[in-house]
Amino acid sequence: MSEHVVVIGAVALGPKAACRFKRLRQDAKVTLIDRDDIFSYGGCGIPYFISGDVSEATALRTTAFHMVRDEPFFRDIKGVDVLSSTEATKIDREKKQVHVTNLKTGDKSVLDYDKLVIGTGATPRKLSLPGEDLENVYYVGNMHDAEKIKQGITEGKYGKAVVVGAGFIGLEMAEAFADMWGIETTVVEIFDQILPRMVSPVLAKMGQNHMQEQGVKFKLGQTVTRIEGDGKVERVVTPGGTIDADIVIISAGVIPNDKLAKDCGLDCGERGGILVDETMRTSDPEIFSGGDCVVIENAVDGSPFYLPMGSMANRQGRIIGGNLAGRSETFPPAAGSFVVKLFEKSMAGTGMSLGGAKQAGFDAVSVILIMADRAHFYPEKDMMTLEMIVDKPTRRVLGLQGYASSGDAMVGRINAVAGMMKFKPTIEDVSNLEVAYSPPFASAMDVINSIANMADDALAGMNHGHGPDVFAELWADRECGDYCFLDVREKADAEPFLAKYPEHWHNIPQGEIPARFEELPKDKKLVLVCNTGGRSYEAQIMLDGLGFKHVLNTQGGMATIKAYGVDI
Amino acid sequence: MSEHVVVIGAVALGPKAACRFKRLRQDAKVTLIDRDDIFSYGGCGIPYFISGDVSEATALRTTAFHMVRDEPFFRDIKGVDVLSSTEATKIDREKKQVHVTNLKTGDKSVLDYDKLVIGTGATPRKLSLPGEDLENVYYVGNMHDAEKIKQGITEGKYGKAVVVGAGFIGLEMAEAFADMWGIETTVVEIFDQILPRMVSPVLAKMGQNHMQEQGVKFKLGQTVTRIEGDGKVERVVTPGGTIDADIVIISAGVIPNDKLAKDCGLDCGERGGILVDETMRTSDPEIFSGGDCVVIENAVDGSPFYLPMGSMANRQGRIIGGNLAGRSETFPPAAGSFVVKLFEKSMAGTGMSLGGAKQAGFDAVSVILIMADRAHFYPEKDMMTLEMIVDKPTRRVLGLQGYASSGDAMVGRINAVAGMMKFKPTIEDVSNLEVAYSPPFASAMDVINSIANMADDALAGMNHGHGPDVFAELWADRECGDYCFLDVREKADAEPFLAKYPEHWHNIPQGEIPARFEELPKDKKLVLVCNTGGRSYEAQIMLDGLGFKHVLNTQGGMATIKAYGVDI
Repeated sequence: MSEHVVVIGAVALGPKAACRFKRLRQDAKVTLIDRDDIFSYGGCGIPYFISGDVSEATALRTTAFHMVRDEPFFRDIKGVDVLSSTEATKIDREKKQVHVTNLKTGDKSVLDYDKLVIGTGATPRKLSLPGEDLENVYYVGNMHDAEKIKQGITEGKYGKAVVVGAGFIGLEMAEAFADMWGIETTVVEIFDQILPRMVSPVLAKMGQNHMQEQGVKFKLGQTVTRIEGDGKVERVVTPGGTIDADIVIISAGVIPNDKLAKDCGLDCGERGGILVDETMRTSDPEIFSGGDCVVIENAVDGSPFYLPMGSMANRQGRIIGGNLAGRSETFPPAAGSFVVKLFEKSMAGTGMSLGGAKQAGFDAVSVILIMADRAHFYPEKDMMTLEMIVDKPTRRVLGLQGYASSGDAMVGRINAVAGMMKFKPTIEDVSNLEVAYSPPFASAMDVINSIANMADDALAGMNHGHGPDVFAELWADRECGDYCFLDVREKADAEPFLAKYPEHWHNIPQGEIPARFEELPKDKKLVLVCNTGGRSYEAQIMLDGLGFKHVLNTQGGMATIKAYGVDI
Repeated sequence: MSEHVVVIGAVALGPKAACRFKRLRQDAKVTLIDRDDIFSYGGCGIPYFISGDVSEATALRTTAFHMVRDEPFFRDIKGVDVLSSTEATKIDREKKQVHVTNLKTGDKSVLDYDKLVIGTGATPRKLSLPGEDLENVYYVGNMHDAEKIKQGITEGKYGKAVVVGAGFIGLEMAEAFADMWGIETTVVEIFDQILPRMVSPVLAKMGQNHMQEQGVKFKLGQTVTRIEGDGKVERVVTPGGTIDADIVIISAGVIPNDKLAKDCGLDCGERGGILVDETMRTSDPEIFSGGDCVVIENAVDGSPFYLPMGSMANRQGRIIGGNLAGRSETFPPAAGSFVVKLFEKSMAGTGMSLGGAKQAGFDAVSVILIMADRAHFYPEKDMMTLEMIVDKPTRRVLGLQGYASSGDAMVGRINAVAGMMKFKPTIEDVSNLEVAYSPPFASAMDVINSIANMADDALAGMNHGHGPDVFAELWADRECGDYCFLDVREKADAEPFLAKYPEHWHNIPQGEIPARFEELPKDKKLVLVCNTGGRSYEAQIMLDGLGFKHVLNTQGGMATIKAYGVDI
């Protein structure tokens, strides 16, 4: 008799594992079961369906050649049987059986398996708030919610929205509401920055400022106390005040669906999630798992890593399919690469943020660079901000995050480092990263090489100073008299600031420093500024060489000062 | 006395090495000498200056903050002395002296050095053709030529152009002439494809077709016999005929300027180029060299590699600067990453092409994939063609080339693999390459993962067939009766072909194969086709399983068949 593989869960991981296995072993029988009657959809596309970028819900569950991935599709095209609206209630590992219940008829039955795949995914984290059950409070956990939200929007039911949580999905939903539909949207986040743990407060502030310019409001460092309304939601209450809302999206992370696995005795992580080895096998070698319900390994420090992303699920699904068929495939530790579109800008990263690296125990520092994303003389270009996190003792690159308008160019640089992360790259590996070069696509000394060179210079003590966050603090404290703010650009660039702040702003163009350095006070900290931090870095080296003891370069210069939102 | 470093050559490598060293050692004296009075320019930008994208020649020699990199700039801002219009005629290694001649005055003098850097670059290869000295025959070797060409264009002097050589610069120049200025342009190339050795004939043909659609003509597999004219060039003669020309650009590669090094006894490669170790030292440890005049190591097979690119020179210059200052920095072997813009499309790559890999002795195969560059349901997307070259016995990835309209997205994928090349990646490394994912930027199973999966399937014998080149041959031979061309798309897609070729075109949608396979001839080779090669791959597996012995999948499907220019 032919082998029978049962796959629990038919979104992302499950279908990928099932179909890959079936291609390798056409004689086998594969049964894919799912609680829902809508399955095999691209959940990451939901914000773009809500926004209207994707007009039909079915588009998220069709192939590139416009076939809906429903039961007949899997049967006829993939040779896989689907039991939809069917819940797996119990795994009997001894008898190698899965107990299932048809949620439409209530019928219970038992499926024998030779090998089993658990792809049960994750559930949005509930906050257990008073009022969480009011009408128009959503978690965006599935297509049914997505369709209800979209219908309400197109009917004009929502004038005001509150999004709880400033992670990927929260920000994508905020954009979806505000951009196309003009809904007055407020994002509430318990941390005091957007994308907490993913990027530094500096990059976060830049992204937040851009979203604010597009009309989104933010309440950071705020918890939600309760949600109020009469049947339907009417407002969200926080310690800092009440926000009117016709719709609330709660997007506070997800929790791995590991109950089925736990109940049958499979090893799970302390903080939840099924444990798997590098072949994606659970503690039972006949049972595989992957996707949003598992814990994997972090490529940077080897720690347990929960990374619920559709891309991880798809790649893990293929590995499982191969191993089900007797191949010997492994899934590598993960760097946590991500990208999120924020209106006209985008934020991306791989590896650890500065905060994450410090929390993981690294002696980490970061540098911030802003530079054109291709030859500066090429007419079509954008400025790209990169922040690189390095480990001081080992010179390892622990992470790289970026913020730019030209998403593809920035994401391409992030990906270039993402590919190296499993090889534990050093600063030198990125300094010499051989990106493809011609003026319409890159700089001869590319922005990705330059950020690594900057990290090299920082570790050598040559480039010392701060980013726009510290500049903002120093500037706010300018009346204390400890600082001399020195603009090293040409006079024309400095003049508006000289006029506005005659007591605090000083100007010596970089090239005039050798002749004019004696004008500068020896007893104050010199805070150097130029457009992007390049000339001020060279000026800092000059002044160091001339014997000035307290010279601080403002990395990223006026460009990041502005993006960070310093009032200057 | 302070150390004196002399740097010969002030384009790309020289200035970078000089300025980096000076930042590290402010007390040292650095002298930068160059034959030309225009130096430190971005030579890679010349085609974009000719095209008009860059309006002023000085833009190629200004900093990002609009300062011209002339003698005063290097003196005041960088602390580096420049001797322009000065030729180094001899290196006396024993006395540690460089003999120089001022080309304007004829004055000769001698410079003592403690350490020396040779950054003499390369010279365009001359073809020694009769008529090569006629007016309006150019090599695009420097800014003076570039300015003369541009002036002639703006004065409307050139109605017809011939470009000899279809490498990067040749194609960029062809675009520069044809796109903005509407000059009737013909490219003559001795190989029978554009970008020979850089990409496969398949990708080359796609790029060529696109350029032809934009009006550029090609004469491939043709040598130039002579150039004719009365004082000024009037025509170019090839064995295949005569082409009228008001201007001729010869772009047949470059030759390293290694004479100065050879004459003083430094080791040079058999085929030219100064030999350097990984610290960029020549065979004399007091003399460094880099950029277009050196030979480095190929990251794929360790062979000597001549890679004259501005990006290599800049990164090598920084390494030299560091080592001059006593640091211990190394430059890694190179993968040969490149990108070239071809009107609305672009071509890029890293590592070896299929032909290059075979020539280097690898048992190499390649696969071609065409796929959307982000989630297929996302509204703004482009199709990307990737070709991956793998070594059969070791599963190593030897190279990756791409062709797409959205350059940044494609170049980003190339860069992701470029970064890995020094680590000698396997197929599995790229299958699981953790690119940043969200629907506006990538697919959940991204195109870069998919090309590696396809290579995996090809090596496993699961995906067998051909690209558009072999399809074209089979289709041309369709009357022989050996082939059954089977379109596995839905009927509506197949119908135009069924109507046009009723005897040769067959259609069974993929999902109907299990029910209808007996309609197919068992004695013919089944040539499967769909839109992009995905469904035909699955159909091929089905038919293999059903006992058909000669099933051929057309990789890349109708999309690459069209881009390749098959008349169907």
